[in-house]
Amino acid sequence: METSLLVVTCCRSLRVTGAGTMFHFWGRYEAGGMENPGYCAGSFDHLHHPSDDDDDDDEMVDIAGATLDFSSTDDVPPLSTGGYEENSSNSSSSSSSSRAAGMNGNGPKLVDPLEDPLPGVGTYEDFNTIDWVREKSKDRDRHREITNKSRQSTVALLHSVSDAFSGWLLMLLVGLMSGALAGGIDIAAHWLTDMKGGVCLIGFWFNHEHCCWTSNETTFQERDRCPQWQSWAELITGTSEGAFAYIVNYLMYIFWALLFAFLAVTLVRAFAPYACGSGIPEIKTILSGFIIRGYLGKWTLIIKTITLVLAVSSGLSLGKEGPLVHVACCCANILCHLFTKYRKNEAKRREVLSAAAAVGVSVAFGAPIGGVLFSLEEVSYYFPLKTLWRSFFAALVAAFTLRSINPFGNSRLVLFYVEFHAPWHLVELAPFILLGIFGGLWGALFIRANIAWCRRRKTTRLGHYPVIEVLVVAALTAVVAYPNSYTRMSGAELISELFNDCSLLDSSQLCGYKQPTNTSETGAGNSLADRPAGEGLYTALWQLALALVFKMLITVITFGMKVPSGLFIPSMAVGAIAGRLLGVGMEQLAYYNHDWFIFKGWCSPGADCITPGLYAMVGAAACLGGVTRMTVSLVVIMFELTGGLEYIVPLMAATMTSKWVADAFGREGIYEAHIRLNGYPFLEPKEEFEHSSLAVDVMRPRRVDPALAVLTQDGMTIGEVETLVESTHYSGFPVVVSQESQRLVGFVLRRDLLISIDNARKRQDGVVSASRVVFTEHSPSQPPDAPPPLRLRGIMDLSPFTVTDHTPMDITVDIFRKLGLRQCLVTHNGRLLGIITKKDILKHMAQIANRDPDSILFN
Amino acid sequence: METSLLVVTCCRSLRVTGAGTMFHFWGRYEAGGMENPGYCAGSFDHLHHPSDDDDDDDEMVDIAGATLDFSSTDDVPPLSTGGYEENSSNSSSSSSSSRAAGMNGNGPKLVDPLEDPLPGVGTYEDFNTIDWVREKSKDRDRHREITNKSRQSTVALLHSVSDAFSGWLLMLLVGLMSGALAGGIDIAAHWLTDMKGGVCLIGFWFNHEHCCWTSNETTFQERDRCPQWQSWAELITGTSEGAFAYIVNYLMYIFWALLFAFLAVTLVRAFAPYACGSGIPEIKTILSGFIIRGYLGKWTLIIKTITLVLAVSSGLSLGKEGPLVHVACCCANILCHLFTKYRKNEAKRREVLSAAAAVGVSVAFGAPIGGVLFSLEEVSYYFPLKTLWRSFFAALVAAFTLRSINPFGNSRLVLFYVEFHAPWHLVELAPFILLGIFGGLWGALFIRANIAWCRRRKTTRLGHYPVIEVLVVAALTAVVAYPNSYTRMSGAELISELFNDCSLLDSSQLCGYKQPTNTSETGAGNSLADRPAGEGLYTALWQLALALVFKMLITVITFGMKVPSGLFIPSMAVGAIAGRLLGVGMEQLAYYNHDWFIFKGWCSPGADCITPGLYAMVGAAACLGGVTRMTVSLVVIMFELTGGLEYIVPLMAATMTSKWVADAFGREGIYEAHIRLNGYPFLEPKEEFEHSSLAVDVMRPRRVDPALAVLTQDGMTIGEVETLVESTHYSGFPVVVSQESQRLVGFVLRRDLLISIDNARKRQDGVVSASRVVFTEHSPSQPPDAPPPLRLRGIMDLSPFTVTDHTPMDITVDIFRKLGLRQCLVTHNGRLLGIITKKDILKHMAQIANRDPDSILFN
Repeated sequence: METSLLVVTCCRSLRVTGAGTMFHFWGRYEAGGMENPGYCAGSFDHLHHPSDDDDDDDEMVDIAGATLDFSSTDDVPPLSTGGYEENSSNSSSSSSSSRAAGMNGNGPKLVDPLEDPLPGVGTYEDFNTIDWVREKSKDRDRHREITNKSRQSTVALLHSVSDAFSGWLLMLLVGLMSGALAGGIDIAAHWLTDMKGGVCLIGFWFNHEHCCWTSNETTFQERDRCPQWQSWAELITGTSEGAFAYIVNYLMYIFWALLFAFLAVTLVRAFAPYACGSGIPEIKTILSGFIIRGYLGKWTLIIKTITLVLAVSSGLSLGKEGPLVHVACCCANILCHLFTKYRKNEAKRREVLSAAAAVGVSVAFGAPIGGVLFSLEEVSYYFPLKTLWRSFFAALVAAFTLRSINPFGNSRLVLFYVEFHAPWHLVELAPFILLGIFGGLWGALFIRANIAWCRRRKTTRLGHYPVIEVLVVAALTAVVAYPNSYTRMSGAELISELFNDCSLLDSSQLCGYKQPTNTSETGAGNSLADRPAGEGLYTALWQLALALVFKMLITVITFGMKVPSGLFIPSMAVGAIAGRLLGVGMEQLAYYNHDWFIFKGWCSPGADCITPGLYAMVGAAACLGGVTRMTVSLVVIMFELTGGLEYIVPLMAATMTSKWVADAFGREGIYEAHIRLNGYPFLEPKEEFEHSSLAVDVMRPRRVDPALAVLTQDGMTIGEVETLVESTHYSGFPVVVSQESQRLVGFVLRRDLLISIDNARKRQDGVVSASRVVFTEHSPSQPPDAPPPLRLRGIMDLSPFTVTDHTPMDITVDIFRKLGLRQCLVTHNGRLLGIITKKDILKHMAQIANRDPDSILFN
Repeated sequence: METSLLVVTCCRSLRVTGAGTMFHFWGRYEAGGMENPGYCAGSFDHLHHPSDDDDDDDEMVDIAGATLDFSSTDDVPPLSTGGYEENSSNSSSSSSSSRAAGMNGNGPKLVDPLEDPLPGVGTYEDFNTIDWVREKSKDRDRHREITNKSRQSTVALLHSVSDAFSGWLLMLLVGLMSGALAGGIDIAAHWLTDMKGGVCLIGFWFNHEHCCWTSNETTFQERDRCPQWQSWAELITGTSEGAFAYIVNYLMYIFWALLFAFLAVTLVRAFAPYACGSGIPEIKTILSGFIIRGYLGKWTLIIKTITLVLAVSSGLSLGKEGPLVHVACCCANILCHLFTKYRKNEAKRREVLSAAAAVGVSVAFGAPIGGVLFSLEEVSYYFPLKTLWRSFFAALVAAFTLRSINPFGNSRLVLFYVEFHAPWHLVELAPFILLGIFGGLWGALFIRANIAWCRRRKTTRLGHYPVIEVLVVAALTAVVAYPNSYTRMSGAELISELFNDCSLLDSSQLCGYKQPTNTSETGAGNSLADRPAGEGLYTALWQLALALVFKMLITVITFGMKVPSGLFIPSMAVGAIAGRLLGVGMEQLAYYNHDWFIFKGWCSPGADCITPGLYAMVGAAACLGGVTRMTVSLVVIMFELTGGLEYIVPLMAATMTSKWVADAFGREGIYEAHIRLNGYPFLEPKEEFEHSSLAVDVMRPRRVDPALAVLTQDGMTIGEVETLVESTHYSGFPVVVSQESQRLVGFVLRRDLLISIDNARKRQDGVVSASRVVFTEHSPSQPPDAPPPLRLRGIMDLSPFTVTDHTPMDITVDIFRKLGLRQCLVTHNGRLLGIITKKDILKHMAQIANRDPDSILFN
C-alpha cells in the first residue's frame, strides 16, 4: 500500500536497542508506541531537549526490558483497523533513508496537493491521538457533498438515503453479531465448566444440565443427578464415593483447569496479545480519541472469543462481562469496514464503538438500558444524543438475539433473575449502608493492591513468565477452590445462588433453616417467614466466609494476567458473599430479638421481614461500585435484574456510600488506574482540573528553552523546511507571517508536510531543495530564474485553536476535553508564544498530583 | 439594592413608544427584552446600523402592539431569581441621566476594581445570555479557595465538607418538595374534576372515589355508585334520570368548566404571567444559558401550582405533565437560594435545574429513570455526569415522596399501570409501524397547525383577549365533550382505560365483547382469548372515533393559551385512541380470519393473540414521539409503565418510525418550534450545522460596515471611552495593543466597563474625563501633571476566545455549543478582524433556512 510506506519515515534510530527483543508480551501497549515507526514524530514533549533520541531509547529499554519478549509474536497476523493497511513487515524492513524508496511504489500520477488530497494526508499513526475537530469536520463535508448531489439525480438520492440509514443497518448488524457471539460464549463456557467435573455419556458435547434433561431418571429433587452424567471418578474408578474417587475428581478438576488456562494463555500469546485483560481501559482510551491499531481487529476478536471461554472455564477468578464489551467493540470495528462513512472516519467509528460498548453490557447482563448508561457514564467520551438512541437500538437487538439463543435455558433475558417478595424497611438502610462502606473499602483496597501487583509485574522479572504465572495462579485457584463448594462453582452460579430468596422447598445448603415445628405458633403460617438457622446454614456460612477471603485475595493477582479477564463477576461475588452473610446475620438477629426496639412494629414473629438475597444483591452492587465507581448505570443494571423500582433505594444507598468511601481513598476507578498505569493519554472527562495554573505555565517552549520551531508562510525553501523538520521531533509546526512578527497563519502536521514534499519531489517537475515553500493564497513575486514554488496551503490547517497565555488551565483543559483537541497554540497580545499538547496537559496534571510526568507515554 | 441601581443606565429612549402600554400579556417575553433597560446594550447586531434606535422602537411596538396589555401586571410581584434583586420600580423611575443618581445610594467605601470585584461586575441583565466559561471558572475558583482553606482549620474543613454535600442536600429538598407538590396537585385536580359531576354529601372535600369508599352500600360491580355521592341533577332536581336531569348535569358541567378556566386565566393574568403554557421551551432556553428573571420565581410557582389544578379540572384538552417540570424547576430555583454555591453561580444553578427537570417527569409519570433520560435528551444543555447521578437521586426521592402521598390510591408509583399477559408476534410489527406513521404525521401536522395558530394569536387581535379566548375554548370543549363519555373523562383516565387489557369481568364498554357461548369450541377455555366484538364495543368504537377527531382539533388551539397547559396527555390520548381502534380492528380481523396466512401458526382460535391495550400504548408513544421528538426517554418512560422488556420492541419500532416520518416534514419538535416562535437565542445542540460558510461570512462588521469599535490598552482617556460606549450598542469591546496593529489583548463587557468607570468617578480621587484608561499590567509613563490613570485590567477578560476568519462555521458553531460562549473574536493572521455572537450565528442559521433573521430577538 503506497500510503503506509510513506509513514515509515522519521526515526529508525529508535529501534536500535529494542531490535533483538522486539516484542514483549505484557508491555506491548507501552513499548509498542516506541517501536512503532510513527511514535517519534508524535511527541511535542521533546521541545525542551530536542535531541534526546538516546533518552527515548533508554526509556524504551526500561519498559521493554521489564517484560519478557516473545519474538515469535512480532509477526502477529495483520490486525488492521481500517484507515490504512497493516505494514508491520514493511516497517521492519524500512530504514531512515527508506523514504525515497517507499515512494518507488507510486505510479507516475501527478497530484497537486491543492486539488486532491494525497493519500496518507489526514490519516494517523499508531499510538497517536486523533483530531476530533478535523474528523468531524471531514464527515460534515462528506455529508454536505452527498446532500448536494442528492438533488441532482435519483441514484444520488438513493445513495444519500442509504447513507443516512447505514448507521442503523450497522447497529443492527453489531447487535446481531454480538448477541450471537455472546450466546456462543455462554454455551461453550457452560459446557467446558461442567467438563471439569465429568462427562455426558450420551454425547460429550452436552453440558451437565442438558445431559440430565434428556434423561428419564431425573427427579425434581435431584435435578443434577442422572446416570448419563458421570463424574471423572465414576468413569475411571467406577465409583463416585470414597476418598479415592474424591481425589480422582480433584485431580481431574485441576488437570482441566490447568489445560484450559494453558490453552488460553498460549493462544493469546501466540496470536493476539491484545486479547488479554478486560479491554475496558483500552477501549476507554480508544474512544477518547487514541489509535491502537489492531486492538479491535479480527484476530483479537477470534482469539478473545476462544480464550474467554477457556479462561472462564478454567475456574480462575474472572468474569466474562468486561471482555464481552471488548468483543462487541471488535465486532463493531470489523463491521465498520462495510460502510465507507465509518471506515474512513475515526470520529464516526468511535460513535459506533460507543454503541458497541453498550451492546457488550447489554448482552452480559441482559440489561439494555443499563448498558447504554454504562457506555454513557463509564466508557464513552463523545456520546451525542443520536448515538444514544442508536446504542439503545443495538443493545436491544443484541439482547433479543441472545434471548433467542437462550443460553441460560430459562428464556430469561437477564443473567441473574431474582424476584423478591418482601418489602424492605427503613431500618434496614443501616446494614445496606454498612455494605456500602464495605464495598467502598474493598474497592479502594483492591485497586491499590491490584495496581501494585501489576506494577510489580511490569518492573520485575515476574512479567517475563506470563504462561507460568497463569498456570501457577490457575493451579492455586483450582487446588484451593475445589474443596469448598462455593468456590468450586462458577462465579455466575455462585452469585445467582446468593441472590436467591429461600423458598420452603429449596434444597440448597444456604436454605438450611429449621422447619417451624408448630405452624400455629408462627401465626398465619407464612411459608416464607423468617426461620431459625439450621446446621446446613451454619456450614454454608463458614464455607462462604472462607470463600470470601479466598476470592478477595485471588482476584487481586488474577486481574491483569495474560488471559481475558473481567472484573464484574469477581467483584460482585465478593460483595454478594459479604451481603448474604450480613443478611443471614440480620435475619437471625431479627428472629431471636423480635422485641428489640429497632425491629418492633415491622418485624413481628412469623413475618418475612429480612430477605438475605436482597442483602447479597446490595453487597454485590456496593463492591462493583467501589471497584469501578459506576453509579447510575450500576443501579439501572441491578434494577433491570430485579425489575422492581422498590429495591432501587437500597441499591442506591449502598452504591452512593460505596463511591464516597472509595473516593476518599483515591478518586480513580480500576479502569482509570490501569489507564494511568499504562501511560495512555487519557484526559478524564469527569474530573475537574482544580489547580490555578495558567496556559503560560504549561506551554512549550519553557522560558529557558529555545524558541518554538515555526515555518514562515513564504520565506523558506524546501531545503530549509526539511532541515527544520529533521532536526526536531515535533508532530506539527505553526506557520507564521514572518519570524519577526510571529503572527499566526496556520498549523501544519509533520506527517502531512513530509508526505507532500516527498510527493512533490517525485511527481512535480522543477521541485528542488531551493524551491520556495509557500503557504499563502497567492504566490509571492519571485526572481524569474527561481524554481517554481511548492504551494502547500492545501495541507495547512487554517483554523488552528489558540488560547492566550493568560487563559486559566481549567478553561484550557475544558476546551481540550470538549472539543477533543490534540494541540492548541498559545498567543500573547496576538503573537505566537508556544504550544500546548494533550500530553503537556497530562504531564502537568501528573506533576500536580506528585506523580512521575514521564509516565505519560503517548501523544 | 446598590447593584441594581447601577444597571439601569444606558438607553431610556427605547422606552418611549412602549411607555403607555408597558406590559402585554402574551408578548411579555418578546417585548420584555426591549423594555428591559439592559436590552439595548445587548445586541451586537446593530453593528451595521449603529443608530437605529428608532427601528428598535418600531420593532417593539410591532410586537407589543400585536398583543393586549394588562398594565396592571406591570407591577407584578417581585419574582427574583437570585443574582440580584428585582428592580422594576427603580427601572421605571430611572432615566438616561440617572446613572449618577443611581450611585447615590452607595456608601463612601473606596473600592479598587483590581482588588475586590465591584458588586454588579460579573452579573447579567435580564433577557441576556450567560457566559458558561466564566461561570464555571468562577465556581472552580470558589472551590479551590475552600479547598485551600480547609487545610488550615477544622471549621474550614467542615465548611468544605458541608459545601461538598450541599448539592446532595439540595437535591433531597428538591425531590421532597416537588414530590409533595405533585401529590397535592394530583389530589386537588382529582377532586375538582369530580366536582364537575357532583358532590359528596359526607363532605364536599371528598372526591367521587373517596366518597364511595367510605360507603357500605358500594358493590364491586358498581364501585362508583353510592348514595353519598350525588350528581348535580340529583341534588337540584332530586332525580338522576331523564332528559331534564341530563341537561342540568350538562349545564353544571359547563358552568364548573368555565369557572375553573376563568379562575385559572385570571390568576395567571393577575399574578404570574410566566405561569402559562407548559414552560418546557423556556426552561430549555434557560438551561442553555439564558436569563429570564422571575420565570422560576416563587410567584410563578404558587400561581402555576394553583392554576394548573384549575386548568386540568376545567376539562380543557391539556395535561399536567409538562407544567410539573416547570413547577419542579421553580422549586429547585427557590431552594437554590439556601446555598451560596448555587445562588451565586448561574452555571451551577443550571445543573440543579437540569436535575429538577428530571424530577418533574419522574413525578409526572412515576418514571425516575425515564425522567433522567428526558432531562438528558430533551431539556438539558450542559449535563455533566455528576449531575446525572444527582438527578437520579432527586428523581427517586421525588417518586417515593409522591408514592407515600399515594394520590392514585393504589400505592403504585406510575400513572398508568398496565400488565399485559400475552406476548406479541413479529407480524404485529406492521400495525405498530403503521401507528408510528400515524404518530409522525399527526406530530408534524400538529406542530404546523399549532405554530400557525400561535403566530396568528401573536399577530392578530386574537391575542388581545386571552381571557375570552380561554373561556370560549373551555366552553367549546365542555359543550362538545360532555355527551361523549370518552371525552368527558379526564385525559389521564381515558388513557388509563385505553391501555387496560380486558378481563372477562370488565364492565367497561370497551370490553363489550360477546361471551363465547360454547367454551369447548374455543378450546382450553382461555378466559382472555380473543372474542368477537359485541354491541357495547361497537358503540365504544364510534365514540372513540369521534373523540379522536375532537381531541385532535381542540388540542391545536388549546396549547399556547394563557393557562398552564401540558402536551403529554393530549398527545398520548390521541395516540392511544388511534392505537386502541387499530388494536380492536386487528383483533376482530384475527378472530374472523384465523386461517389467513399472516395469522396462521400463532393465532389459532381461542388464543389470546392480539392485545388492544398494547396497541393503545404503542399509539400513545408514537404520537408523543411525533410531537416532542423524544426517543430514548420516551421508550424508557413507557417501559417503566409496563415494567416488561418484552414490550420495548414494539414501542421502539413505533417511536423510531414516528420520529423519521415527522422529521421528514420538519426537524423541529414542538418545543423547539415554540422557542423559535418566541425568538429565544437557543442553539440547538442536536442539529448539525450543515452549511459550508466560514467565520468571515458571519462575523460583524461586514465588509461595507465601519470597522469594529475597539479600545486600546493604554491609549484612551475616560472621556474617549465614554464617548465610544455611548455612541454604540455593543455589549462588549475588544481591547487591542494599538489601533494600527489590531493585536488582541482582551475583551471588556460594556456593563462591567460602565460600572467600573462610574464607581471610580464617585469614589476614587483624581479620576476625571482626561484620566487615561489603562488595561496593561504596568502603568505607562505619563507626564507628571497628568491625572492618575484608571487601571481596569481587573475587569478585562484576558482569555477571550478567538477563531481565525477561515474557520468553517460548523466548527465555530460546535465551539459555541460545547463551550457555551456568548461571543467569539475573529482574527486574521493574528490581527483582530471582527466578532461573532450567538445571535449572529442564530441569524445566519435563520437566513440559511430562509427564515426571517430578525425573528431572533435576544442576545
